[in-house]
Amino acid sequence: MKRLHRDDIYGWSLFNEGLDIDFHSVLWVRPDGNVAIDPLPLSDHDRTHLEQLGSVNTIVITNSDHTRASKSLAEATGARVLGPADERVRLECDGWLNDGDVVVPGLTVMTLHGSKTPGELALLLEDTTLITGDLIRAHVAGRLHLLPDPKLSDKAKAVESLRRLANMPSIEAVLPGDGWPVFRGGGQALADLAAEFD
Amino acid sequence: MKRLHRDDIYGWSLFNEGLDIDFHSVLWVRPDGNVAIDPLPLSDHDRTHLEQLGSVNTIVITNSDHTRASKSLAEATGARVLGPADERVRLECDGWLNDGDVVVPGLTVMTLHGSKTPGELALLLEDTTLITGDLIRAHVAGRLHLLPDPKLSDKAKAVESLRRLANMPSIEAVLPGDGWPVFRGGGQALADLAAEFD
Repeated sequence: MKRLHRDDIYGWSLFNEGLDIDFHSVLWVRPDGNVAIDPLPLSDHDRTHLEQLGSVNTIVITNSDHTRASKSLAEATGARVLGPADERVRLECDGWLNDGDVVVPGLTVMTLHGSKTPGELALLLEDTTLITGDLIRAHVAGRLHLLPDPKLSDKAKAVESLRRLANMPSIEAVLPGDGWPVFRGGGQALADLAAEFD
Repeated sequence: MKRLHRDDIYGWSLFNEGLDIDFHSVLWVRPDGNVAIDPLPLSDHDRTHLEQLGSVNTIVITNSDHTRASKSLAEATGARVLGPADERVRLECDGWLNDGDVVVPGLTVMTLHGSKTPGELALLLEDTTLITGDLIRAHVAGRLHLLPDPKLSDKAKAVESLRRLANMPSIEAVLPGDGWPVFRGGGQALADLAAEFD
């Protein structure tokens, strides 16, 4: 499992041959129980590493296309699984998340609209790290991109959700589920992306 | 093969379980023949992708610990292999590189000192992208690190080489062979690292 930009944030990745990008999962290591976001299948090595880091208490699924290995990880660890409230009909979860909910102290839910699934979640970790699912992604390193138009259910709403994120000056790192993370200047990368739709 | 920060730069990676970081290779796609740096073994998918991008004419090895899959790639493609002149005794190459040499137009060699091998190479691509081997690395995302002290042959010389890089304000991206690339603010990351040794 790779160290990300903080001592307490780890990640693991899987190269996707269809898109030629890495898919990513994030683990926030906390004294009161770790949180995994959109967990991909784990190698034996990373599974052992996860246990060394304290396993996982909570799994957050940002959207129904990112269930990935959530079910098997929940079964193996006993973690609760939380998903977007707008996808109750599509997902099996132990709890549902709405905009403004606090998953654990320091991890706040934002609901994004207009993406390919209803009410996709983004997560803001201690005001400085934004974790996104599918709407905000990165197929070119160091920049951020919106999901392509044909996949958006409502582009105007998607851009509005993007603008909301771009107006949060505290964001430093943006960790998309799909494509290169932006560890430095993530807020600027969001602003640059939003400016494309002005 | 992943798109990096420019249309003409690609990369592929391999997670190293011993260090819990990704190892990286870089491909610069050029009309006059592509250049690969420190090539790792390629998956069938990436091997096909490489052929679609025009295969490879030149392989550069930054140091003798980064030969990786250079030999088999050279055999498969007919590419010439270039390595650090200070490692003539350790490496089999078709040609040798010294500080200031131009591999192909736009790709300039810098020789670094004090690392674990003599005369390790760094490559400066069109003044803005720095590709490093082992001396400059990144085990924490968004930051750069020097090889640990016990591995350095001469720390003062290593820091001097680092300072030379940190004094090049044109650098925007730093792509280490080992650990997270810094696509935004790479020059600042070099300056931050150099400042640790003031």
